[in-house]
Amino acid sequence: MKSIKIGIAGTGVVASGVVNVLKRNQEEITRRAGRGIEVAVVSSRTRSKAEALVGTGVEIVDDIMAVARHPDVDIVVETMGGYEPARTFVLEAIANGKHVVTANKALLAEHGNEIFKAAQDKGVTVAFEAAVAGGIPVIKSLREGLSANRIEWIAGIINGTTNFILTQMREKGWTFDAALKVAQELGYAEADPTFDVEGVDAAHKITLMSALAFGVPINFKAASIEGISKLAATDIAYAEKFGYRIKLLGITKRTPDGIELRVHPTLIPESRLIANVNGVMNAVLVKGDAVGATLYYGAGAGAEPTGSSVIADLIDVTRTITADPEHRVPHLAFQPDALENIPMLPLSAVKTRYYLRLTVQDRTGVLANITRILADHDISVDAMLQTEVDDTTKQTHIVIMTHISLESSVDAAVQQIKALDTVTGDVVKLRVEELG
Amino acid sequence: MKSIKIGIAGTGVVASGVVNVLKRNQEEITRRAGRGIEVAVVSSRTRSKAEALVGTGVEIVDDIMAVARHPDVDIVVETMGGYEPARTFVLEAIANGKHVVTANKALLAEHGNEIFKAAQDKGVTVAFEAAVAGGIPVIKSLREGLSANRIEWIAGIINGTTNFILTQMREKGWTFDAALKVAQELGYAEADPTFDVEGVDAAHKITLMSALAFGVPINFKAASIEGISKLAATDIAYAEKFGYRIKLLGITKRTPDGIELRVHPTLIPESRLIANVNGVMNAVLVKGDAVGATLYYGAGAGAEPTGSSVIADLIDVTRTITADPEHRVPHLAFQPDALENIPMLPLSAVKTRYYLRLTVQDRTGVLANITRILADHDISVDAMLQTEVDDTTKQTHIVIMTHISLESSVDAAVQQIKALDTVTGDVVKLRVEELG
Repeated sequence: MKSIKIGIAGTGVVASGVVNVLKRNQEEITRRAGRGIEVAVVSSRTRSKAEALVGTGVEIVDDIMAVARHPDVDIVVETMGGYEPARTFVLEAIANGKHVVTANKALLAEHGNEIFKAAQDKGVTVAFEAAVAGGIPVIKSLREGLSANRIEWIAGIINGTTNFILTQMREKGWTFDAALKVAQELGYAEADPTFDVEGVDAAHKITLMSALAFGVPINFKAASIEGISKLAATDIAYAEKFGYRIKLLGITKRTPDGIELRVHPTLIPESRLIANVNGVMNAVLVKGDAVGATLYYGAGAGAEPTGSSVIADLIDVTRTITADPEHRVPHLAFQPDALENIPMLPLSAVKTRYYLRLTVQDRTGVLANITRILADHDISVDAMLQTEVDDTTKQTHIVIMTHISLESSVDAAVQQIKALDTVTGDVVKLRVEELG
Repeated sequence: MKSIKIGIAGTGVVASGVVNVLKRNQEEITRRAGRGIEVAVVSSRTRSKAEALVGTGVEIVDDIMAVARHPDVDIVVETMGGYEPARTFVLEAIANGKHVVTANKALLAEHGNEIFKAAQDKGVTVAFEAAVAGGIPVIKSLREGLSANRIEWIAGIINGTTNFILTQMREKGWTFDAALKVAQELGYAEADPTFDVEGVDAAHKITLMSALAFGVPINFKAASIEGISKLAATDIAYAEKFGYRIKLLGITKRTPDGIELRVHPTLIPESRLIANVNGVMNAVLVKGDAVGATLYYGAGAGAEPTGSSVIADLIDVTRTITADPEHRVPHLAFQPDALENIPMLPLSAVKTRYYLRLTVQDRTGVLANITRILADHDISVDAMLQTEVDDTTKQTHIVIMTHISLESSVDAAVQQIKALDTVTGDVVKLRVEELG
């Protein structure tokens, strides 16, 4: 059978992973797909870069739109990242009847509904396994492997940079700044690490999984996002005393009132497998009503892990390329006319357990005041820890683990607690998920 | 679109999981598949059992062959287990142009090549996600999600009964017999537990994954199988002193000389995620050349987890039911005409690390003799532990962890060591896998 021809926009890390793995495993890939997959054209403004990537036998163009419109190309691979020109490129490729494979979570979290609609109308596929959790086939598992289930929730370590930083903070007792510096030196964090450390990248990914899990349109604006840049090593240590690890989790949950969608540092019982996922590794825990909890673990980034997912998509698209669109797996797991508009919940409506750390002056009645305020807000205490009084400052830390409470009640209680004149400084509030 | 009609052979645990989940999640399943999936006929020799399962609106037949030949049925679900009449039923269904979904690993490990050939010739699909690791979509991940990779090895905890027993032995210090008794009381082990505890069930599953990973025919006869019934709690405790856990692993590995296929109790570093998979849970670790190590974790058995995988297969088959067979994912991951005949290695050719436990008399020169024999066989020692001398027996245990050695050399050395008159009783030999 004739080889499938692909066109690649971009010559960066993802492109190199795709090209190298396609070349190295050419024979096995052909044995699986039933036909070859060949790079026909690559775009780059710097010709030498493209030649370094694909050699001299492949057409090189300087305009990405020439890839989107190339008459020989069956599938385009978008590896540029970011919103533009990626969006224009993908839409142009679709308009030209090309299938698209992309690793671009930012693009899909912001413009996915528009892109999938255009693809649907044109009868082409936009595949994006590599957009979430790198090499882990979690999109496929969620969309196809667990398709019998009513998904209850997803919780994922889906950003390797922050997981590396948190692992260093815990293992070495480092501050966030110290751990970030090492991550940057090792190439695990970018010079401007904002997207990663503030949770935006994780939010893009959990937004996509939320849509797949619950059959709702992609709704990035509904995500509540809190990163790890303000997390203190102290809280990691206290959490450990209660038997918990702190991870940056992307969480989406179906509740009777609507869908929760949030990213924040989270305490997880240390006995959970996902609490032991360290370094730059990713893991996604999915709870279905029939299957129970399943976990998917692996490399969340890097040239070849990402290339692995891009090529898996290329093989999937290759298999169905001449089939009716109706035979294909729908982009968002559910048929496009079967998406629902379940309300997205604000963070204030979240119900979970909370970790609170207060800095207080060592005076009688402090604890009584605090527990009274908590009780007034229907917040019951599961465990408490008070540190020794610091000789110099005469201050002490009180750490409280609550039972399940309503976020807005906790916020109101925290406001009142902060107003107490025995409570100094800020009150640290972290969320706890049992993931049982 | 018209609903897909299925026929179910059997009314046991798997059938009940399939029927209940299909009913409960009917609406979501239809939203995903684009059409309904309906039970049209069920076979049972006891009518009341079938009625308890599907109610009175569904046709009930007493002959399974009536399901295989039923004119309304698009897909048959085989839930009987075992070799016969399952094999005859599946072949008859295929001959009648029905697609087949099955959870039957024994059947496919023994007769898979014949069954897939028949399906291929007839242009129908035989889907078997539920045959390996219950609800975990590991067949799909291996066959589609990791299709870009040259798979290097797979190591899986793929039998819940033995993992439950091993967990109890470690946590409570119980003997195998005591742990088995509890497993039987809890319904995790059958009255005759041979298939599970002797590793046969795990061997069926790793045999299927081996074929999928390496593009070779199914070859159950090539599997080396060792169960856990002879495992002593002592060795679990000693392993722990070296920082290892003992798990029953199914292992298949590609080496330059051929393919290893084996099931045996295995020491794994306790820091590995898979070493911390406890109770009845399953997990499969897959190493690909591009993606690195990925892990898939979840429930390996039970009505609804198994039902989850059966229904995922039903949805997959439903999607491609009117498509050309060429658009489908090949049964064994590789195209049927692209399977290779890579040699399967005997256990004697395996190279790995070994744990040896000797019971010796406390006399001078014992250790010198043992280490000389090991050195003579090119086996170098990584770590050693000697217990205190028992006052009554004057005996002591010597536990040795070797570097990577050849199994046949280790066996030869063990024979010589056993012949020493200072060595009493048997020498315990366990394999160690770093899984790094």
